[in-house]
Amino acid sequence: MSCVASRCTELTIKVYLPCIDEEAGDIMAFENDTVRELLEKYRRIWAIRHASSVLGWDMEVNMPKEGIMERSVAEGELSVMSHEFLLDPSFVTLVDKAKSIDALSEEERGVVRVLSRDIKISSSFPPEFIRELSETTSRATAAWKEAKEKNDYNKFAPWLDRIMDLGKKAADYLGYDAYPYDALLDMFEEGLTTADVEKMFGTIESELKPLLDKILSEDKVPKEHPLEKLRYNTEAMQKVNLEILKMFGFPLGQRSRIDVSAHPFTTEFGVKDVRITTRYEGFDFKRSILSTVHEYGHALYELQQNEEFMFTPIAGGVSLGIHESQSRFWENIVGRSMEFAELIYPILKKHVPEIGKYSAEDIYWYFNTVRPDLIRTEADVVTYNFHILVRFKIEKIMINEGIKASELPALWDDEMEKMLGIRPKTYSEGILQDIHWAHGTIGYFPTYSIGTLLSAQLAAHMERDVGSIGERVAAREFGVIQSWLREKIHRYGSIYPPKELLKRSIGEELNPKYFVDYVKKKYL
Amino acid sequence: MSCVASRCTELTIKVYLPCIDEEAGDIMAFENDTVRELLEKYRRIWAIRHASSVLGWDMEVNMPKEGIMERSVAEGELSVMSHEFLLDPSFVTLVDKAKSIDALSEEERGVVRVLSRDIKISSSFPPEFIRELSETTSRATAAWKEAKEKNDYNKFAPWLDRIMDLGKKAADYLGYDAYPYDALLDMFEEGLTTADVEKMFGTIESELKPLLDKILSEDKVPKEHPLEKLRYNTEAMQKVNLEILKMFGFPLGQRSRIDVSAHPFTTEFGVKDVRITTRYEGFDFKRSILSTVHEYGHALYELQQNEEFMFTPIAGGVSLGIHESQSRFWENIVGRSMEFAELIYPILKKHVPEIGKYSAEDIYWYFNTVRPDLIRTEADVVTYNFHILVRFKIEKIMINEGIKASELPALWDDEMEKMLGIRPKTYSEGILQDIHWAHGTIGYFPTYSIGTLLSAQLAAHMERDVGSIGERVAAREFGVIQSWLREKIHRYGSIYPPKELLKRSIGEELNPKYFVDYVKKKYL
Repeated sequence: MSCVASRCTELTIKVYLPCIDEEAGDIMAFENDTVRELLEKYRRIWAIRHASSVLGWDMEVNMPKEGIMERSVAEGELSVMSHEFLLDPSFVTLVDKAKSIDALSEEERGVVRVLSRDIKISSSFPPEFIRELSETTSRATAAWKEAKEKNDYNKFAPWLDRIMDLGKKAADYLGYDAYPYDALLDMFEEGLTTADVEKMFGTIESELKPLLDKILSEDKVPKEHPLEKLRYNTEAMQKVNLEILKMFGFPLGQRSRIDVSAHPFTTEFGVKDVRITTRYEGFDFKRSILSTVHEYGHALYELQQNEEFMFTPIAGGVSLGIHESQSRFWENIVGRSMEFAELIYPILKKHVPEIGKYSAEDIYWYFNTVRPDLIRTEADVVTYNFHILVRFKIEKIMINEGIKASELPALWDDEMEKMLGIRPKTYSEGILQDIHWAHGTIGYFPTYSIGTLLSAQLAAHMERDVGSIGERVAAREFGVIQSWLREKIHRYGSIYPPKELLKRSIGEELNPKYFVDYVKKKYL
Repeated sequence: MSCVASRCTELTIKVYLPCIDEEAGDIMAFENDTVRELLEKYRRIWAIRHASSVLGWDMEVNMPKEGIMERSVAEGELSVMSHEFLLDPSFVTLVDKAKSIDALSEEERGVVRVLSRDIKISSSFPPEFIRELSETTSRATAAWKEAKEKNDYNKFAPWLDRIMDLGKKAADYLGYDAYPYDALLDMFEEGLTTADVEKMFGTIESELKPLLDKILSEDKVPKEHPLEKLRYNTEAMQKVNLEILKMFGFPLGQRSRIDVSAHPFTTEFGVKDVRITTRYEGFDFKRSILSTVHEYGHALYELQQNEEFMFTPIAGGVSLGIHESQSRFWENIVGRSMEFAELIYPILKKHVPEIGKYSAEDIYWYFNTVRPDLIRTEADVVTYNFHILVRFKIEKIMINEGIKASELPALWDDEMEKMLGIRPKTYSEGILQDIHWAHGTIGYFPTYSIGTLLSAQLAAHMERDVGSIGERVAAREFGVIQSWLREKIHRYGSIYPPKELLKRSIGEELNPKYFVDYVKKKYL
């Protein structure tokens, strides 16, 4: 691709001509003319989303501080453009036309489903509402920061009241069958309902809670580990992470990168450029390593897409819950296994010699401590779900039943005490700990637990097919694991909604009992 | 700024809602209602250009190899969108309306001039032509690569014939008064004509050529220097560059970055995020240091914009020639001065101890060798202009007079021999050395010389105002230099076209004699 004077200078030139590249990106998997026309028009929405993702990644990883204002304006303009293109009458008409065609392939039906859903959600909210939501969450976030810093819930409470109202309004705009909260859940996890989540947490409460109590009452599982305090050098730990990623076969430099950011994340700019980040705090190195392994799981889902889906809306993971199942699979099933501890032990010793004082088994237990903690992001594999359960219970009341923000802290504290046996002493370590509600994000938390629970379920199915995962890890046969995941999950992209995907890939719906079994086997 | 579920997750979520930020970016300097409306509409073109720049930077600095295809498609789509918005009838009508208003401020007139020019250039070419140009240059670039590798001019010649034809066509589409080449020159340097460039190179040939001959015939100026061969460690040289940039006050991390790329460049994403790159080849460290200093000059021009021009088309350097005058000023006038050599000598010794065997004066002469070289990018300050002169003579014939590609190599070789006394033995070190023509870029080269010549002229004017630049450098008083450049050039952004800017800032037009004097003073 080339255009007059675009790339032959030390400086971006102010002559802008459109670049046209005829050869790139002809889509093979889609034969229906209407769908092909649709995908051709979709290309520019794809391009804007690609650009937005790059802008977002750059903002977290590279951007000089003062770039924020211009970057925010650019992102805002791009999101408005993408919105406008999506809701352009000629585009919407084409999607409707495609919807009525019977003879579509599964992939084509997937394209139409995803676009219809995008259009439905995007067109649900009137501009005044979006403006109000945007303004409110912007100010609420500032108020939340101050409230958390000063441990002053009253500074945030009025904003939370407004955000709950907006959440209910959003649910009304979106529409729902049973409960308004269903509409919000569905936004983050297609097809998810309050009833689904209640059922899921029902099992957690009835079966995992007694297990947790048993683990905590026995002395077998450490509650903390001296390795948490070990200080490390960032460069050394970067080398450890690189060796782990190379062991997994992560295509660094070819189709991926790893960088550093305050909060680890994965972003995909397409099928062939998927990037992860991790963090280095200088102590408690499991955060750095397990974040890397976690994000690797997200990235693998994107990297193992069918390449024919490139430039289409079905390229990429189908939902947050399914995505999280992939990251948790690598973090919990692989990364927290004894075999993995043994595998990385020599790598750790090589780069951080002090670790030589400990054994591989120490690493294992350090990665697998169980300790009730007030802070969700500090939680271990077992207690984590209870943090989400508490948030779910509160969100459900917020949206389905209606409650004043002033009543929430007591509710929070009581639930935490009931579930984990600890009670926050401050708002900051209680209800004010997460940014999500300030951002207007209600209905998101349950996807974290879906991912955790599903990862154990997928592991059980994988073991039926390929035998012990631990043995594969010990033999460094990651390809077997990757292939199974590609075959069962990744290659479908977003063709099927989450529930249908599970039915097709493992023949059952989400079942938390697998996770309960995993915990039982691991800890008891 | 906030939008539902945009930044609160480890993964980019597939719920896209427009983000609206009411507070950001209200423009103060523009009071006319039509211009304000224009700037409001322009905002999305600005955003696309911002995004394209980030995508381009990322491509050179970070992108994993296989990301190229998706990135190219995204950039292509963005450029088409930007083109469409620019030529949207409602936008064009508004620009025309603004053009007819008498009571505009200088800034407002600048906005209208820049947008009119953008629209004129962008609307000049019919889509079939852009398609043909794009396809031809894409294939020509591949052919050029092979031709250069195999030293086989015949592989490229038919493409060059087609590109010359397209260049002539482009000139016809753009329109011109005297010569078709004027139209191409103007695309890269507003208002530049064949006559201007002829006049400029007339002085170079009549006054600089004898000087060069004299320098080469005497033994005072070294033709090469042993420091060229000194191997260095990249990390060490990175520290040297960082110390130099800090000395200049470059706002690293606040409003800028420095990274590594194969070809050094500067890019601006706005007034508050301007990034440079440099290179590290492991030897001949002046390339790395002087590239850094050169790009710093480009970056300073962007960083010292009037912040009120943010989001408008007059933010940013006005032309390639003026931009290059800024980079050459820092590279040649500051970076190649004896005082600068003395200033960086201790820094160099600290990080690269082997340099201790040499003196500051050695550094100076190493930075200031004069040696005819067949390759333009290897050329020194004095011989560089003759490389451009040769290209200008050939381009002028290509477009104004018509010539077959088959006749060009002889012309090239003869001119090189006449100017620099050396004759290429291969096509690869002769006419095939640059990628520009394969890219369809004709009329660009002269801006390199404009920058070089103008930098000496600006230096002379600066010295009249603030005294010896060398003394300022020695005293690390870079602020005095920066202020002068801001006052005279930078703060105007693109308000005035290049010729008018010079008239206002230094009261004269480009005059190559200043550069001749600079060479005389430096070398004789």
